[in-house]
Amino acid sequence: MTRPRNDNFLRALLKEPTDYTPLWLMRQAGRYLPEYCETRKRAGSFLQLCKNPALACEVTLQPLSRYNLDAAILFSDILTVPDAMGLGLTFTEGEGPKFERPLREEWAIRDLSAPDPYDHLRYVMDGICEIRRALGNSVPLIGFAGSPYTLACYMIEGAASSDYRRVKTMIYTRPDLMHHILSVTADAVVGYLNAQIESGVQAVMIFDTWGGGLSAAAYREFSLHYMQRIVAGLLRQRDGERVPSIVFTKGGGCWLEAIADIGCDAVGIDWTLDIGEARRRVGHKVSLQGNLDPAVLCASSDIIAAETRRILDSYGPGNTGHVFNLGHGIAQWTPPEHVTALVETVHEYSRALRRKN
Amino acid sequence: MTRPRNDNFLRALLKEPTDYTPLWLMRQAGRYLPEYCETRKRAGSFLQLCKNPALACEVTLQPLSRYNLDAAILFSDILTVPDAMGLGLTFTEGEGPKFERPLREEWAIRDLSAPDPYDHLRYVMDGICEIRRALGNSVPLIGFAGSPYTLACYMIEGAASSDYRRVKTMIYTRPDLMHHILSVTADAVVGYLNAQIESGVQAVMIFDTWGGGLSAAAYREFSLHYMQRIVAGLLRQRDGERVPSIVFTKGGGCWLEAIADIGCDAVGIDWTLDIGEARRRVGHKVSLQGNLDPAVLCASSDIIAAETRRILDSYGPGNTGHVFNLGHGIAQWTPPEHVTALVETVHEYSRALRRKN
Repeated sequence: MTRPRNDNFLRALLKEPTDYTPLWLMRQAGRYLPEYCETRKRAGSFLQLCKNPALACEVTLQPLSRYNLDAAILFSDILTVPDAMGLGLTFTEGEGPKFERPLREEWAIRDLSAPDPYDHLRYVMDGICEIRRALGNSVPLIGFAGSPYTLACYMIEGAASSDYRRVKTMIYTRPDLMHHILSVTADAVVGYLNAQIESGVQAVMIFDTWGGGLSAAAYREFSLHYMQRIVAGLLRQRDGERVPSIVFTKGGGCWLEAIADIGCDAVGIDWTLDIGEARRRVGHKVSLQGNLDPAVLCASSDIIAAETRRILDSYGPGNTGHVFNLGHGIAQWTPPEHVTALVETVHEYSRALRRKN
Repeated sequence: MTRPRNDNFLRALLKEPTDYTPLWLMRQAGRYLPEYCETRKRAGSFLQLCKNPALACEVTLQPLSRYNLDAAILFSDILTVPDAMGLGLTFTEGEGPKFERPLREEWAIRDLSAPDPYDHLRYVMDGICEIRRALGNSVPLIGFAGSPYTLACYMIEGAASSDYRRVKTMIYTRPDLMHHILSVTADAVVGYLNAQIESGVQAVMIFDTWGGGLSAAAYREFSLHYMQRIVAGLLRQRDGERVPSIVFTKGGGCWLEAIADIGCDAVGIDWTLDIGEARRRVGHKVSLQGNLDPAVLCASSDIIAAETRRILDSYGPGNTGHVFNLGHGIAQWTPPEHVTALVETVHEYSRALRRKN
């Protein structure tokens, strides 16, 4: 395997020099793109879109034909893993994900087992092969999974929750059961991400959407610990090329040093943290990915450019270690043409900064 | 004015020594108490309860007759201020607050003015007088207000929001209008809190519930700046006694140093931050208030005691500078008898720690 022609994303993650700051956007293939909505309609539902390799490939490529992005990310959903574990995932329009069989009984928890990714998640691996063929040698493909804690939140609550009361109750009353769920889910995620790597993804990202709602101590015990286990279990390379890993805990800014310590190559940060401060805290250890507030994309091109430059300025001089991204997924109400201003500013201004220093 | 017999709460805020760590609980007069639900029913609605000084006094005292708490907090709601500014507050059962006239037009924003607290918020001042009479000389009474940014979120969105899209859009497209709203609201809050102080509250707290959703730069410009203005405008003492101030930004852990710098006496912290770390970062400058995850109160007495001790241990040795609290309001599903374990542990264990050191 050779690196793609545009390998700036991989280089930045591995702290190799780049001519400009590479970028991609969380949820870059999403509802803000009319062509995505059209494909999704054809698929019938969000879940059918995830499970159809040809259509998943189609939407994965859509943002790349519009914008000069430096990476593609597999179109899928973090909840396909618990679905493969037998919890029965459905998506209701406007209501979000729901599990038919949430984990409510001890026997159901004891019965959990890690699925064979080549069996129940075959469609993901097929999608990856198809996307890699379609991308040719252009840009790298990112694979991903949810963190065990974030997946457990959905598995236990059965849906998104405002307070994660059932999850917290389990943490504080039956930590043994919680650890069992997390342990099996971590095994499932390791198997899943390694199958993605074997199928062709060139970097992996772990999304910890809900870990930020835990106490400092509970975060380490119930979320970070399992992400560390996953990172330790990942295939480090494929065909002689390193496969870098990114860990992102939304709302995890206070715990940055601890996250940077688990062996990942990069840490994703949300927009609440100043990226220059994050770099001073952990930049010697990991690369950083982030961190524009997705809400900025509602503003005019001038403002988008100014806020983008502010982040590049704050990150500061140097020619590596930063992958530009939003601090969270792009919002569905984002005008697609606004993304152009962001992409151009990141590329041009970061080139100019490198020339200046 | 002399200090109440139990002045440990005030002493801890002012870094005077205390024999044990004082505590109170955010939303301590709330729906988890059956007697509160009963009074609220009699009042007719949540808002009528807020606006009835006798009933507001009654519910303010309820948690104090159940638990050995070290402070009372005025029963009210942060949204009474925008209500007094003419936005028309209503609460629908199960849906939360709503404004009949949210700020949607520039003329409405330009028309905003700070209300006379002794006129439109008279009922609050009457309630304070009544509560002070009822408390006698037992424990201090805390007054409070929402931060201008948090109030503006509700004033602009018209209700709670999942993404504060209108607010963010205004920040990034019409910062001038946003600053106008915040400036008028800050004036309103200064007048309101000073009227509370004149009416008898012995400490004040500013609740910044939504500031944590801003970028680091936007937080300073649109939330922290206005809280600093408020703190600077507060009456520092009444009848010769200092009136300490507490500032609490939920999710503001990354910005702790900046918050501790605005002139307040104490900073409230949510449960995501380790309080020992917070103390190392800013404990030389301010007292700290917090920070048990309210979800811990779903567990057994043993676990509640263990998690409470963990926080006291983490705060570490010393006989002042810590007011124990939850990291957010107490949840409505909390079994009232669980609070007893918390209160007893805080008092007994903190006494024991002082003897040890």
